[in-house]
Amino acid sequence: MADIEVLDRNDPLAPLRALFELPQGKVYLDGNSLGPLPTAARSRVEAVVQQQWGRDLIASWNSHDWIGLPVATGEKIAPLLGAAPGQVVCCDSISVNLFKLLATALQLRPGRPVILSQQDNFPTDLYMTQGMAALLGEKRCVARAVPADALMDAMDDQVAVLMLTQVNFRDGSLHDIEAITRAAHERGILVLWDLAHSAGVLPLELDSWQVDMAVGCGYKFLNGGPGAPAFIYLAARHQDRVSQPLCGWLGHAEPFAFEPGYRPAQGVASFLSGTPGIIGMAALNAALDVFDGVDMKQLRAKSLALTELFMTGVRAEPACADCVVLTPEEDRRRGSQVSLAHPQAWGIARALIEAGVVVDFRAPDVVRFGFAPLYNSYRDVAEAVAQLARILAADEHLQPRFSARTRVT
Amino acid sequence: MADIEVLDRNDPLAPLRALFELPQGKVYLDGNSLGPLPTAARSRVEAVVQQQWGRDLIASWNSHDWIGLPVATGEKIAPLLGAAPGQVVCCDSISVNLFKLLATALQLRPGRPVILSQQDNFPTDLYMTQGMAALLGEKRCVARAVPADALMDAMDDQVAVLMLTQVNFRDGSLHDIEAITRAAHERGILVLWDLAHSAGVLPLELDSWQVDMAVGCGYKFLNGGPGAPAFIYLAARHQDRVSQPLCGWLGHAEPFAFEPGYRPAQGVASFLSGTPGIIGMAALNAALDVFDGVDMKQLRAKSLALTELFMTGVRAEPACADCVVLTPEEDRRRGSQVSLAHPQAWGIARALIEAGVVVDFRAPDVVRFGFAPLYNSYRDVAEAVAQLARILAADEHLQPRFSARTRVT
Repeated sequence: MADIEVLDRNDPLAPLRALFELPQGKVYLDGNSLGPLPTAARSRVEAVVQQQWGRDLIASWNSHDWIGLPVATGEKIAPLLGAAPGQVVCCDSISVNLFKLLATALQLRPGRPVILSQQDNFPTDLYMTQGMAALLGEKRCVARAVPADALMDAMDDQVAVLMLTQVNFRDGSLHDIEAITRAAHERGILVLWDLAHSAGVLPLELDSWQVDMAVGCGYKFLNGGPGAPAFIYLAARHQDRVSQPLCGWLGHAEPFAFEPGYRPAQGVASFLSGTPGIIGMAALNAALDVFDGVDMKQLRAKSLALTELFMTGVRAEPACADCVVLTPEEDRRRGSQVSLAHPQAWGIARALIEAGVVVDFRAPDVVRFGFAPLYNSYRDVAEAVAQLARILAADEHLQPRFSARTRVT
Repeated sequence: MADIEVLDRNDPLAPLRALFELPQGKVYLDGNSLGPLPTAARSRVEAVVQQQWGRDLIASWNSHDWIGLPVATGEKIAPLLGAAPGQVVCCDSISVNLFKLLATALQLRPGRPVILSQQDNFPTDLYMTQGMAALLGEKRCVARAVPADALMDAMDDQVAVLMLTQVNFRDGSLHDIEAITRAAHERGILVLWDLAHSAGVLPLELDSWQVDMAVGCGYKFLNGGPGAPAFIYLAARHQDRVSQPLCGWLGHAEPFAFEPGYRPAQGVASFLSGTPGIIGMAALNAALDVFDGVDMKQLRAKSLALTELFMTGVRAEPACADCVVLTPEEDRRRGSQVSLAHPQAWGIARALIEAGVVVDFRAPDVVRFGFAPLYNSYRDVAEAVAQLARILAADEHLQPRFSARTRVT
């Protein structure tokens, strides 16, 4: 790893790091869980609280266009997804948005009750499907989850929608959206992609891949702040044929007409429900400015270089011999994180955090290293490998202070 | 109105005004739409963004107990509702929370498909019911809305739940929760109260009134900021007998076990869905500190005095002769706003705002004056009456610049 300095010096994305307020003396490798604070988001929140809420008060719904913020923020996300305008809106959480879209999918495929997913999908995706099935009853909705390698066989004529997460939260493996979408469509099945670990770090082409619907997260690689609102993508071709059940007043054609009967807004705006949290959404909206002029292919190239450098480094360190790299080696199969399995994963994660390398633990035995090409440097990778090797060589992860497993996110 | 100064001088709640950052030179009478900025909320947001998100990053989920914020904030709201601990949680929007509770109500009353409400309820309440009915089909769910005076007759044995808003958003009239709840229960009907215009300004006794479920708003009289999250109340006696359909990972018994199957958390925490917006919820949490040591009965007494003073003032002004007071005169029938109907309501609202008296307009012909006893003074009332009379006497509301009706919230 002698050429680290050269890699950083030649990194065309290196200047973007200055747009974030990263804590001193830390290597932050958990942007796949919570992106760091962009300076633009800090300033925007201050303006929204002090000037807009504090001084302009209720008038801000119009004068600062709070009312337009969900659509405006959706349109800022759209280019990162390869989506033409009019198909993305920012609102609610991934969980709630999944419910809206799953109901829509069942509506588009009458007579097909199955929502098909992957057993190790992120749990909330599975839970929301289970909630839908419990509400509608088994004649109208069946939640089916199978291992990843059984997905193709499970795509039968009972399946309305295939709901998958592109990047697996645990092992960082990556689905081929285009190929799977095509296979699903050949069987008359709609696709609903969860882009939680994709948006903002992978080049996406939802329109040209003919994706039907998608959700994604505002607080991971979009750096929108803790619990930032999520987003919905619904392809234009479906928009006039569906309604969604969480039809609150913000999704009404004329919210301020206060009519007793619901009339959906045109297009994807009908997927809005209640009043949006303005402060949090404004933070996300400002955070998205970081992507201005960023080439997603360049971002992806750096992401792959970072994760590859890390995997190579780990494999080269004798002290890391007991770490099993769970993440696929093939570029086209890997998201923007590397997951290591180790019997003492908990202790390793705690020791790394104490040493200033912020990673996270996922039960039962995984340490996740998230690499964010917007702000992580090659030096960050080298430091992570060095600290990991040092900890393992010194058996630091076995120290009693790391043995008690307390709650960790 | 000669004794205004005396009223303010003798007002035991007057010092609370200093806890808010109200704009200079304005009389803010729209706290029933958006409460003003409490200094505590401004400071908390700054700390959450800069220290918690910016510096401590992902560790804040534990070290600053972000993960506990929805329950902790619910418990801070509970005393304002007359609710013992363990029954209130802060999450999502009123719209989304209504959906969760309506599904729960239908589950508790099998064979009764009707959700009964009032025709002029706040539209999102009606819309969410319509969405539920469309999703479940008419055998399982029927949305029925009748005029207020037809409610009693409509409570038949097909009704599962009566969903009402305590204070009508348009005319400010107030329902008697205790009496209506008793009448509903006598017919085997559950009650779901929307406390959007009640929480933080009316003394509530949900437990002793035997209310089954309730929702409420964080951004009106709780002053939690634009689009602040809402809350859910579910009486303890129902909690072990129900499940809710929007069962996301935050409502799981062990979110960080990442199990493939949903197991609900104990109690009302199972009504959480996805990851909460932390910045917005933290603002609301801090805003609730304003209520520390405040006697809700004292707050109610001042609220009634403010609205009565306003109505008396309007009636005494010859220039206001064409204003029809829609809000009931009887104390026990009046919330914390006064609504005036006038054919030129739009122009009057715009002229008042230009004169520094911030009110709002509701179609087709209503001007709403919201009075918040935490920060409004008797002088605010006098100023509102004086400006209203001046505008009407001078026909200022008829000026061309107020004639075009542009969008207003």
